[in-house]
Amino acid sequence: MLKAKVTVTLKDSIVDPQGSAAERVLTSMKYPVESIRIGKYMEVILSENDKVKAEEIMHEICQKLLANPVMEDYSFELEG
Amino acid sequence: MLKAKVTVTLKDSIVDPQGSAAERVLTSMKYPVESIRIGKYMEVILSENDKVKAEEIMHEICQKLLANPVMEDYSFELEG
Repeated sequence: MLKAKVTVTLKDSIVDPQGSAAERVLTSMKYPVESIRIGKYMEVILSENDKVKAEEIMHEICQKLLANPVMEDYSFELEG
Repeated sequence: MLKAKVTVTLKDSIVDPQGSAAERVLTSMKYPVESIRIGKYMEVILSENDKVKAEEIMHEICQKLLANPVMEDYSFELEG
């Protein structure tokens, strides 16, 4: 059993209205915030013990379902 | 300038329908997935160079805006 911690973020060139809204709120509250970008975080438990196979599987899963490769970047760490 | 990498996850006792849906899809596609929990990931750039102050600010921001402390846990790392 391995755990993958996945982060999915919008590519830098893609506008992030949700992040901009949070940024505006915090700036208006006088917090020293320069920018916020909001993405997704996922914890996937795999019933696979081989780290190499698990890595291949995670790349497939990220590309097919968890991230949109046109607009988003993903990265993951395996723990186990 | 410091960068905070924030992850916000639903507490274990809270049902995560979005994660369950992803889990069902991947299981039906024969991926060896046992569970998925979906949360949020945020990158906050602070115009503050003192790590101690930045940590205090991030706790406040997380509790007030980025996470809902009733249903969610948060954690962050500062990089600079």
